[in-house]
Amino acid sequence: MTAASRFEALRKAVNDRLSLAVQTEWGDIPEPLRGAMAYSLNGGGKRLRPVLLLAAHELIAPWDEAAMRFACALEMIHTYSLIHDDLPAMDDDTLRRGRPTCHVVYGEGMAVLAGDGLLSLAMEEMLSVRHPRAFEAAACVARACGVRGMVAGQCLDLSHEGEAPTEELVSAIHRGKTACLLTAPLEAGLILAGADGEQLAAGRLFGLDFGLAFQIQDDLLDLTGDEKLLGKHVGKDEAEGKLTWPALKGPAQARRDMERLTEEACAALEGAFGEKAAFLTGLARESTGRNV
Amino acid sequence: MTAASRFEALRKAVNDRLSLAVQTEWGDIPEPLRGAMAYSLNGGGKRLRPVLLLAAHELIAPWDEAAMRFACALEMIHTYSLIHDDLPAMDDDTLRRGRPTCHVVYGEGMAVLAGDGLLSLAMEEMLSVRHPRAFEAAACVARACGVRGMVAGQCLDLSHEGEAPTEELVSAIHRGKTACLLTAPLEAGLILAGADGEQLAAGRLFGLDFGLAFQIQDDLLDLTGDEKLLGKHVGKDEAEGKLTWPALKGPAQARRDMERLTEEACAALEGAFGEKAAFLTGLARESTGRNV
Repeated sequence: MTAASRFEALRKAVNDRLSLAVQTEWGDIPEPLRGAMAYSLNGGGKRLRPVLLLAAHELIAPWDEAAMRFACALEMIHTYSLIHDDLPAMDDDTLRRGRPTCHVVYGEGMAVLAGDGLLSLAMEEMLSVRHPRAFEAAACVARACGVRGMVAGQCLDLSHEGEAPTEELVSAIHRGKTACLLTAPLEAGLILAGADGEQLAAGRLFGLDFGLAFQIQDDLLDLTGDEKLLGKHVGKDEAEGKLTWPALKGPAQARRDMERLTEEACAALEGAFGEKAAFLTGLARESTGRNV
Repeated sequence: MTAASRFEALRKAVNDRLSLAVQTEWGDIPEPLRGAMAYSLNGGGKRLRPVLLLAAHELIAPWDEAAMRFACALEMIHTYSLIHDDLPAMDDDTLRRGRPTCHVVYGEGMAVLAGDGLLSLAMEEMLSVRHPRAFEAAACVARACGVRGMVAGQCLDLSHEGEAPTEELVSAIHRGKTACLLTAPLEAGLILAGADGEQLAAGRLFGLDFGLAFQIQDDLLDLTGDEKLLGKHVGKDEAEGKLTWPALKGPAQARRDMERLTEEACAALEGAFGEKAAFLTGLARESTGRNV
């Protein structure tokens, strides 16, 4: 199986599971809350975080029901963060993946609740898993998306907009906003699969460096990408004085840093898992060349 | 010890613990996120939910470190729900407990993040507890504040504003918005303390009926209460066409229903715990006569 078809197979498994949940398990969630949550969750995302979690689990053992539940929870958390981030009081985005954002369709109040609901449901889902290490894995996801992780990154991003960027500040924003939630799938997948300390450390390093590289690529695409391919407005970061790595270092140096981080990420994972790491390292390397 | 002084002692223990956490453990949360979270958490709340949790634990055994962590987590979840509920896109309240609401002081974007942060931190706190039943207790709190609990109540409240009230709808709103988060402390406290199935069922019934009675009293106070004593604007529900029990049944019948629910709540708890229930039943009965 090629890396692309393996990604597609994992992505499909996640999509099938999420569709089933929305159609069956979500039946008792009142409208329009259920609709708003489903609208954003089924917005055509790459499912990168759940795929990372399942693939991390497969470094040690085939993924199972517990891993799939955690994978879906990660996607719910990612979706909640996008819904709140798009709000007028935050980034004020009206378009995402080629569709109007949640608050444009459902109103601001319902968008706030849809985000709250997805975060709560993600926690509920993880805590419904019967698995000896579910508690530890859920704790790690909670830390990653919390006030020393993703929410911290959002706070720094929001409160320093328009300031002259420093390397320290931009790193902290990228670590919080993006890298934490790309590290969490590695950690949670490996914890559930029974990884030892060394394997877990390698997975963390991969997630962190890949996450930072991924954010640089995201910012480069905002600078130079194709609006139609991306399905969102581009050039907004520059117009709004967002603190990005390309703004700090220039696009050429930013690209070099992205490539270095990707190689460091891959080296860490290969060191711990050898050839088994090929799918994840391939995924990381491909993503530095992505145009969507 | 009188019921009032026991409440005060528990309340003080919770306040001391929360203050300590804000001053020490919260040191690595970036500003102004930390400030916004602390501002709302230290807004002079009654600490009803944490006190209920500690008191529920004491029905079976003295409360301990695990119970206190869960108690503080419940207060964080309650505070998050108030911050988001007060947002312009939701209830649009500018005053709470005599002070400007979070978004008035910190801006709407930071208020969204402060709520997100408090919910995430509550989960993180519960999942940092080493206790054989912490997983089960955390799962029960997550359900209570989730899309079939509190967030569902908020959705119904927001999406049916201005409609003619029906008994079924108002009950569903009250159950979700208020009773779920007053039942959760009973459940979590009893689970942590090692309650059996019968004790847990009695605790749940107490929480639910007391929660419904509490919400009716809240709505009666909005109708007839003293703005200065309450520290918030009154008469808003009626002006905005909120679906409340007094609006549905009239104030006199609403008061009778509140008293009946309170007695049913107390009977359930006394049935399972006898004289040990006295503090909690006293608290429930007092709260139907409260003016703040």
